[in-house]
Amino acid sequence: MLEWCQDSNEHLPDQRRGEFMRIYDERNVSMMMDLYEMTMANGYYLLENQDTHVAFDVFYRRNPDSAGFAIFTGLEQIVEYLEGLHFDPEDIDYLRSLGQFDESFLSYLADFCFSGDLYAFPEGTIMYPNEPVITVVAPLVEAQLIETELLTQINHQSLIATKARRIVRSAEGRPVSDFGARRAHNNDAAIYGARAAYIGGVAATATVSSGQHFGIPVSGTMAHSWVMFYKNELESFRKFASIYPDNCILLVDTYDVLHQGLPNAIQVFTEMRDRGIASKNYGIRIDSGDLAYLTARSRKMLDEAGFTDAKIIISNSLDEYTIRSILDQGGQVDAFGVGERLITSRSEPVFGAVYKLCAVEEDGQMIPRIKLSETPEKITNPGLKDVYRIYDADGHAVADLITRQGEELDLSSRYDFVDPIKPWKRRAFENCTAKKLQVKIIEAGKRTSQLPSAKEIASYVDRQLREEIWDTEQRFENPHIHYLDMSPAYYEMKMDMLETNR
Amino acid sequence: MLEWCQDSNEHLPDQRRGEFMRIYDERNVSMMMDLYEMTMANGYYLLENQDTHVAFDVFYRRNPDSAGFAIFTGLEQIVEYLEGLHFDPEDIDYLRSLGQFDESFLSYLADFCFSGDLYAFPEGTIMYPNEPVITVVAPLVEAQLIETELLTQINHQSLIATKARRIVRSAEGRPVSDFGARRAHNNDAAIYGARAAYIGGVAATATVSSGQHFGIPVSGTMAHSWVMFYKNELESFRKFASIYPDNCILLVDTYDVLHQGLPNAIQVFTEMRDRGIASKNYGIRIDSGDLAYLTARSRKMLDEAGFTDAKIIISNSLDEYTIRSILDQGGQVDAFGVGERLITSRSEPVFGAVYKLCAVEEDGQMIPRIKLSETPEKITNPGLKDVYRIYDADGHAVADLITRQGEELDLSSRYDFVDPIKPWKRRAFENCTAKKLQVKIIEAGKRTSQLPSAKEIASYVDRQLREEIWDTEQRFENPHIHYLDMSPAYYEMKMDMLETNR
Repeated sequence: MLEWCQDSNEHLPDQRRGEFMRIYDERNVSMMMDLYEMTMANGYYLLENQDTHVAFDVFYRRNPDSAGFAIFTGLEQIVEYLEGLHFDPEDIDYLRSLGQFDESFLSYLADFCFSGDLYAFPEGTIMYPNEPVITVVAPLVEAQLIETELLTQINHQSLIATKARRIVRSAEGRPVSDFGARRAHNNDAAIYGARAAYIGGVAATATVSSGQHFGIPVSGTMAHSWVMFYKNELESFRKFASIYPDNCILLVDTYDVLHQGLPNAIQVFTEMRDRGIASKNYGIRIDSGDLAYLTARSRKMLDEAGFTDAKIIISNSLDEYTIRSILDQGGQVDAFGVGERLITSRSEPVFGAVYKLCAVEEDGQMIPRIKLSETPEKITNPGLKDVYRIYDADGHAVADLITRQGEELDLSSRYDFVDPIKPWKRRAFENCTAKKLQVKIIEAGKRTSQLPSAKEIASYVDRQLREEIWDTEQRFENPHIHYLDMSPAYYEMKMDMLETNR
Repeated sequence: MLEWCQDSNEHLPDQRRGEFMRIYDERNVSMMMDLYEMTMANGYYLLENQDTHVAFDVFYRRNPDSAGFAIFTGLEQIVEYLEGLHFDPEDIDYLRSLGQFDESFLSYLADFCFSGDLYAFPEGTIMYPNEPVITVVAPLVEAQLIETELLTQINHQSLIATKARRIVRSAEGRPVSDFGARRAHNNDAAIYGARAAYIGGVAATATVSSGQHFGIPVSGTMAHSWVMFYKNELESFRKFASIYPDNCILLVDTYDVLHQGLPNAIQVFTEMRDRGIASKNYGIRIDSGDLAYLTARSRKMLDEAGFTDAKIIISNSLDEYTIRSILDQGGQVDAFGVGERLITSRSEPVFGAVYKLCAVEEDGQMIPRIKLSETPEKITNPGLKDVYRIYDADGHAVADLITRQGEELDLSSRYDFVDPIKPWKRRAFENCTAKKLQVKIIEAGKRTSQLPSAKEIASYVDRQLREEIWDTEQRFENPHIHYLDMSPAYYEMKMDMLETNR
């Protein structure tokens, strides 16, 4: 399936990790934060006990594109950010120039490092609204300062991974390649966007930097400029074939696909065949026009010329809906290049994860905190908690369950839980098993486990969606809404807090 | 107007420029390109004369949001990219690992630097579809390799600057601050997005890194977590006021705006007044609920308590339409914090600038090239050309005009031009003046002029929109479409090429 792209630096895992780390370290993105993190931190530093620990949850409230799920992505970058977090002398100088920070706080920042704990779903876990995918337990100031970067990484990469999965699903097994760099929201959006797209199931990216840093297969052949540079199209195709006989995808729409581009391509393929060159990977790309019609006609012309193994690749403002439509109309396509609508998630370019305080240390105990709201969905889930995924006997994920932290969960017999949307209903799990979703990733500022590669994460995503997640949750139209249930003890605690705070 | 934000490191222009350069140099974004740039470059290197110069134009085809114009933004980053462009040994190693590049080409890359010329509109120029905002004239391989990064910068920053202008326009003189970092498409989208938003007219950003690197005013006070950390809201407000009496914007919607948050804020303001503290900048922020209703009620309550100079700031999924609606309903607002819908340009997150070959050197002459298309708008404008903005006697920009490069343009008397959409009409400029829009920025790889600061660019944008650009082009609904005309000689050349290529 992947012949048409280069399965690249598989052999460079250590090197790539070293290189990748270098990016973050040298950029020092510690100042990538909202100013209010800093004003609040300065306030806490001056007013409160520095050893007071707090807990923040990261969660989101709504799946993009009215989908049934999202893919938790961006954790590797968060871990690297937390490990590298420090403030350089020029950062301190800049903050001092703003005239609102105490010198004692600036001195504290000069020696800052993150000393807290980070719990998270494994990267690539299928996630649902309102469950804590990350929990930070750290001294007050530290926990506050990291808010923006955690959200930016999760929001961007989860958005793109989730969108990519939709596009991959619509391609029904044909490979999809990310062609989006030029329409991405700047370099990081292209580079991390390609990583996220690969985690979501895209087979390759055109973005070289992402191939280099994340070991993602890269793909790409020619642009219109190659064809336009030469005085005629046939010459341009011959030249390309002379250099790349084994990866010879010719772009046939610079002038006229059916009357010029495709006949010229067939001419070149014939010349290659006549000279005994058996190309491993050859074919055409069409980047404009009526792609359903043009690919069907092209397939016929290629087949009639004996090039039944010539590939047809299409691009041009594709997304899950246009791909599905082209295939439904009988378009003959071997692979898709998807650009702007993937790399910007054009149909819904905002992923709304938030970072909410859920507990504050008082006398050595983590005491729950809640945020109220006029809209019930916006009321937060207070306190430290455990999140489980509940599986039926066939291994399908039937629900997620929130319990109080450390609460015993015994599913060996019938387990009564509370459906927080319909708490009056009697509900129970029977013959089910549970898996705790959050894992400790950082303890006292140090990474406690090796993070998987992008390829491993992509495999994990794929396995969940094939084996664990109901297909009814994956369809585009009116997907089944995954249940997020609560243990009776957790539900009772939350209701008590609502009562008290009213 | 800007009291509520910090007009930051104005005094650090040299330092900030040094720091900013460091970001790009250390990241080495040279590999931020589509693989096909590299495969084409390798092909050209092996097959063609390396000294052959070509010209590429950057232009776009459609204004986002059906608007009448866009703002040309991102040039500074392009210049810095071209100046720093090089390939490190590990880049060469990675490319070698792909197994498709010739060793002679890889050796060439190891010594690569950009030696071409860059012509561009001054950054911040109001731009229109189908005119070349950038022209690159460079040796073939060099011109091809830089495509992706040029487009990524222009597309991202022009998108955000243009969107920002719409939002600023809707605020009718009230300051707008960028609060979008956490919903941006990764770090660069936040950092350069804030730069672009500032160029578009936003008064400040919450993103600290952008303040530091671009000298943009920064703003920010408190989040819900500050209020939730304390056992009650009143205590949290008192604590904040004790640290920041002169920049005391209290977030009043954690529990209940009108029945709790605002009364508590008024209590704290009263205590400050009673202690003789005359705050320079104080007030409230509301981040949820019915913002038209809540701000009107809040204004009344604040005024009745004698706090007529207390500011009301709102945020929460704002854009140009919600802001206009809130103001139309009598919402009482002093400033807006705008997040996700600005930093992702949510209504239209794709800006479609393209990079098209327009001329190739043959025997020392730059010979025009054209790309045909079934859709007339997609036919490119061939050849080297000059672009002029034409002004009437009042200084209003009445049209843009494309001529052949070096063609004399004499507007001292009536000048007959061609309207390429309606070429049969007799059209002329009378009593007009012309300004050439493209300026030489880089010559033979070296910068030929100092680039303006973000602040200077923002002023330039503002001046054009106040003095030169018709208000009819700036309205949101059915704006006047700016004319892009052609000199008779240029039009004739293009028609000849169409005829020849048919």
